[in-house]
Amino acid sequence: MTDTLMADTSLFVSLQQKIDSCLDSLLPSVGSSPAELHEAMRYSVLAGGKRLRPILAITSYQATGGKGDAIMAPACALELLHTYSLIHDDLPCMDDDDFRRGQPTLHRQYPEYVAVLAGDALHALAFVLLAETGNSDIVAEVGRAIGTGGMLGGQVRDVQAEGKDVTLAQVEDIHKHKTAALITASVKLGAMLAEAPSSTIEMFEAFGRKLGLAFQIVDDILDIEGDPQLLGKSVGADNRLAKATYPKVVGLVRSREIAARLIAEAKATLADFQNKEVFCHLADYILSREH
Amino acid sequence: MTDTLMADTSLFVSLQQKIDSCLDSLLPSVGSSPAELHEAMRYSVLAGGKRLRPILAITSYQATGGKGDAIMAPACALELLHTYSLIHDDLPCMDDDDFRRGQPTLHRQYPEYVAVLAGDALHALAFVLLAETGNSDIVAEVGRAIGTGGMLGGQVRDVQAEGKDVTLAQVEDIHKHKTAALITASVKLGAMLAEAPSSTIEMFEAFGRKLGLAFQIVDDILDIEGDPQLLGKSVGADNRLAKATYPKVVGLVRSREIAARLIAEAKATLADFQNKEVFCHLADYILSREH
Repeated sequence: MTDTLMADTSLFVSLQQKIDSCLDSLLPSVGSSPAELHEAMRYSVLAGGKRLRPILAITSYQATGGKGDAIMAPACALELLHTYSLIHDDLPCMDDDDFRRGQPTLHRQYPEYVAVLAGDALHALAFVLLAETGNSDIVAEVGRAIGTGGMLGGQVRDVQAEGKDVTLAQVEDIHKHKTAALITASVKLGAMLAEAPSSTIEMFEAFGRKLGLAFQIVDDILDIEGDPQLLGKSVGADNRLAKATYPKVVGLVRSREIAARLIAEAKATLADFQNKEVFCHLADYILSREH
Repeated sequence: MTDTLMADTSLFVSLQQKIDSCLDSLLPSVGSSPAELHEAMRYSVLAGGKRLRPILAITSYQATGGKGDAIMAPACALELLHTYSLIHDDLPCMDDDDFRRGQPTLHRQYPEYVAVLAGDALHALAFVLLAETGNSDIVAEVGRAIGTGGMLGGQVRDVQAEGKDVTLAQVEDIHKHKTAALITASVKLGAMLAEAPSSTIEMFEAFGRKLGLAFQIVDDILDIEGDPQLLGKSVGADNRLAKATYPKVVGLVRSREIAARLIAEAKATLADFQNKEVFCHLADYILSREH
């Protein structure tokens, strides 16, 4: 079991390297104007990161018969969108974070207006890359996942819930929107681009929802007991901001149980899918990750 | 001549009303969650405005044979993008404006984080509406127009030029990116959706570039000698921020001459186009507008 996990982790590492190299080639060069804005975009995107969303999109593309590199640019677009959301989330008027991916947050490294505009620019570039697939359904799917019915709806509720007493249902609602919506769209995107049957896309939707929620619960847990060196950011930020998290509402032990149950349920959604193994390893990795 | 202009202004007013009503129906309801974010989006978008970008898209759609209302949603998407750019531009870390479209700016009316996220949400919603046309070329065209090679590139250069000595070429470069890029894409979008021949789309591109630059020069002039009541915002902001403007670089008289020349050149690009009249009236309106 450990060997299999090791093998799959190395598969993810080689995918991460391919994604990093693709991100580098898709981002505008610092040699072209406006240089400072391009620099800022590259600073945040190329600082590393798990690249979970592109990995999910590439995996679902390949697992449903997609061939070649057509998935690479739209998969990278998902990482640009994720990075833009982190940049805006870190701003002084939101979480006011100083550290991200092992380096100062963008608004600490550059003037704040550059951070706002670099987030906006990654947002716009992502849609260009998605549109260049020629598949407008993908553009609409991702657009809805990051809008007020998805990620942005979760972000605003997340800030509004700070310092308040919240129920488990409310935290679940925040996490489903803030994190699981884009993760779900990422799994679906690969299958949509590979023109998989709608039953497969629906199966991936169910998988993505469970996986995305579990991912955010593990994030909450790592913010309490993770290693700041491995995480590349300070821990305890949720507590400082009195954020609505699973550990806050149900404690660490119960949070771990819920995450494990969701991962098991996620894997079960793929029971009848022939190429489920790589997804199951991804799900296990998400549960056991240390950063 | 005055009669014709009057007649056309009333045509624009009826188009503005149709656009306002369409924007109202496309924006998420305040009855749905997250209510405050939806309220904030509606506050900024429905505060009025000239609706120039949708008017240009609708006009080019109809002038190139487009039928029915398929143009309405993508045309409104252009207004959402324009409004998002104003919201982020007005933020304390950028122009720090207090007043816009006759009311407090969004970050003065709501918490600042709501203004950042409402801008982001309009950005995302616009791409959903553009994608729902099924035409991914339109999505890519607009995405490029608002990216670092277009509007955002202009915005960052605009802030960077504050308080500096700039040349006429530099101001022209800022204005072409900041304003003319999205206006050009707006004129092209209608023709692209109507599946006009590429020669027509290229003609509209040349028209849009001249018109968009003239529009921003008139904006610069109005910031000096306009009526704050008509404009719905304070005047003198450019001077306060020591912005790079045409009047600052070449004076008011020469700025008016350049704007008039560009409008004449814009009209000349359409010399061989059968349905040019409505565009010529739009161009004249842009030159003579008081807000």
